[in-house]
Amino acid sequence: MRIERLKNEMIKSNIDGYLISNINNVFYFTGFMDISDATLSLIIPLDGEPTLLVPPLSYAAAKDNASNCLVDVISNEEEKIVDKLIKNIKLNNLQNIEFDTLPIPMYMDLIKKLNEVKMTPNRKPIWNLRRIKDEQEISFLRKASLITDIGVEAGIQAIKAGVKEYEIAAEAEYAMRLHGSEGIAFDTIVASGPRSAYPHGVCTNRVINKGDFVILDLGAISSGYRSDITRTVVVGTPTQKQNKMLELVSRAHRKALECIHENIIAHEVDANAREILKSGGYGKEFIHGLGHGVGLDIHEPPTLSSRSEDILKEGNVVTVEPGIYILGFGGIRIEDTVLVHKNCGEQLTQAEYYL
Amino acid sequence: MRIERLKNEMIKSNIDGYLISNINNVFYFTGFMDISDATLSLIIPLDGEPTLLVPPLSYAAAKDNASNCLVDVISNEEEKIVDKLIKNIKLNNLQNIEFDTLPIPMYMDLIKKLNEVKMTPNRKPIWNLRRIKDEQEISFLRKASLITDIGVEAGIQAIKAGVKEYEIAAEAEYAMRLHGSEGIAFDTIVASGPRSAYPHGVCTNRVINKGDFVILDLGAISSGYRSDITRTVVVGTPTQKQNKMLELVSRAHRKALECIHENIIAHEVDANAREILKSGGYGKEFIHGLGHGVGLDIHEPPTLSSRSEDILKEGNVVTVEPGIYILGFGGIRIEDTVLVHKNCGEQLTQAEYYL
Repeated sequence: MRIERLKNEMIKSNIDGYLISNINNVFYFTGFMDISDATLSLIIPLDGEPTLLVPPLSYAAAKDNASNCLVDVISNEEEKIVDKLIKNIKLNNLQNIEFDTLPIPMYMDLIKKLNEVKMTPNRKPIWNLRRIKDEQEISFLRKASLITDIGVEAGIQAIKAGVKEYEIAAEAEYAMRLHGSEGIAFDTIVASGPRSAYPHGVCTNRVINKGDFVILDLGAISSGYRSDITRTVVVGTPTQKQNKMLELVSRAHRKALECIHENIIAHEVDANAREILKSGGYGKEFIHGLGHGVGLDIHEPPTLSSRSEDILKEGNVVTVEPGIYILGFGGIRIEDTVLVHKNCGEQLTQAEYYL
Repeated sequence: MRIERLKNEMIKSNIDGYLISNINNVFYFTGFMDISDATLSLIIPLDGEPTLLVPPLSYAAAKDNASNCLVDVISNEEEKIVDKLIKNIKLNNLQNIEFDTLPIPMYMDLIKKLNEVKMTPNRKPIWNLRRIKDEQEISFLRKASLITDIGVEAGIQAIKAGVKEYEIAAEAEYAMRLHGSEGIAFDTIVASGPRSAYPHGVCTNRVINKGDFVILDLGAISSGYRSDITRTVVVGTPTQKQNKMLELVSRAHRKALECIHENIIAHEVDANAREILKSGGYGKEFIHGLGHGVGLDIHEPPTLSSRSEDILKEGNVVTVEPGIYILGFGGIRIEDTVLVHKNCGEQLTQAEYYL
């Protein structure tokens, strides 16, 4: 059980309480997903029962859906959350608490009113659990990836000269929703022409032209779990330069996929891909890390970058997304979501490459 | 100019620097909307030029799109943001800084390394500006509301027995995207049958039945500005009880709209609507405040609730959304986005009521 595993982490860190406010962390431990923007508090004493404090608007849903904890309701005023929390912390006689995140005014209030209690921000105990996906989580990630494939294919089909970027996003998101996606994993990127040189280019009403690169980067959500894919196409016949870029990034992507296995250091995976782009003359144009973990959050540990000391483990799910970005000209990126196994990386997203 | 107006607020609060990290606040002052989840820092000295510190991934887009400030690039490591920030704060000789939000580790780092500088969280100076929409903002809110109407109408058309909640969301969101919405203003709610008793019920794969209440709550985004609407329909012929609930909430909604004008205190608007539900026997089943401000954020000041002392001003944009929620039975809500004028409230969302 996840709370028991967190308690083991707590023993290692020598703390007697962990306070959770991040909604994905609340969901991870209780199965309750809140969509209000009020502050939730899940307080987990090392000895004792976890309690979830929720605002009135979320109370009925939390009562029906939150497992592994008591559910208590707070009024909408922040003061009251703090007061309920303090009561609970005192009741459990907690002295040394770590937490994932807090609004600053609430943090300041807590340390003022609990001046004998040590309060330390530390997400590590939770990431230590969340970065290793269990079987159920993997099945959700597979489902999200399947829907993501459907989305990217619908988007690619809609790409042609004369169409607007957001119209492509519309088709992709519609297809994902109809196949059960719980919204979009992040703001869909449809970056065309010179805009494709922005790695985070969102999408605009720009009309797509013949000869444009079009980067389509999107993801679905299934049972809270996100997937992430990028495909890049050229509208019409690619130029020699475009072909060279596509071929290089595709080789870098394949190389990274091939070297993934348990116990490889993340920066080595990054280096494998980066080396290919460098040798092709585009090292400086690969301006971001190779990838990131993905799960309930779209960006989570482990990180694949040139400085990451993360060691890949079975059950990690990461993106692999080399790219080349040339300001004023355009950019390309190829990305898949990958499950780390003992001896290999398994592509969860499997849409065609359109190369 | 917005930065000049913020500086006037800063003079009133007697501070010499304001630090902004919230992406909507960055957008409000610079016109640059970032979609990375890295921390941005816009530092605004009272005397001197504002500087926007961005991560490498966002640098090209920020250089091209951010106005009213210098743009400087940071590496992805948090340490470096803090160091760049500290350098800038020392360069400008700032002593008394307010900020909107900060990740706690960054806050702790800043106060440790800048122990002679006062750092206070205070969003008020920014909300004082953002709560009064200017002409350009109102035109964006009108456009978002127009698209929101189209979305809710497409959703309502899709409601019939046998259809799943998320299929209705798919139609509504698709229609909004095709009409230029930049994504969705918040997670679309399609809450049917007993699930309609959850005010924040998101949407599931529940199949809609004859006799169900279906609450459809959604919004579009235009140039960053959000709109918000809710309509509730009964599938088939409503029962007497359902009709009574719909009629009451509709009267409460109309009453609230009618009493909106400049200088009314927010709790009075709430009381006007609440009184009608109370007199109809459903006072206790109206479990949330009447509404909230809306703009770049979906929930922002002013707040319409029974305790809100906010005084409505020309240029405020608020939702009006009375509802009745009966656990185990179902719930209803009717909501519009409303612009406050001197003598009246103007409905920006204008979709049919389907009553």
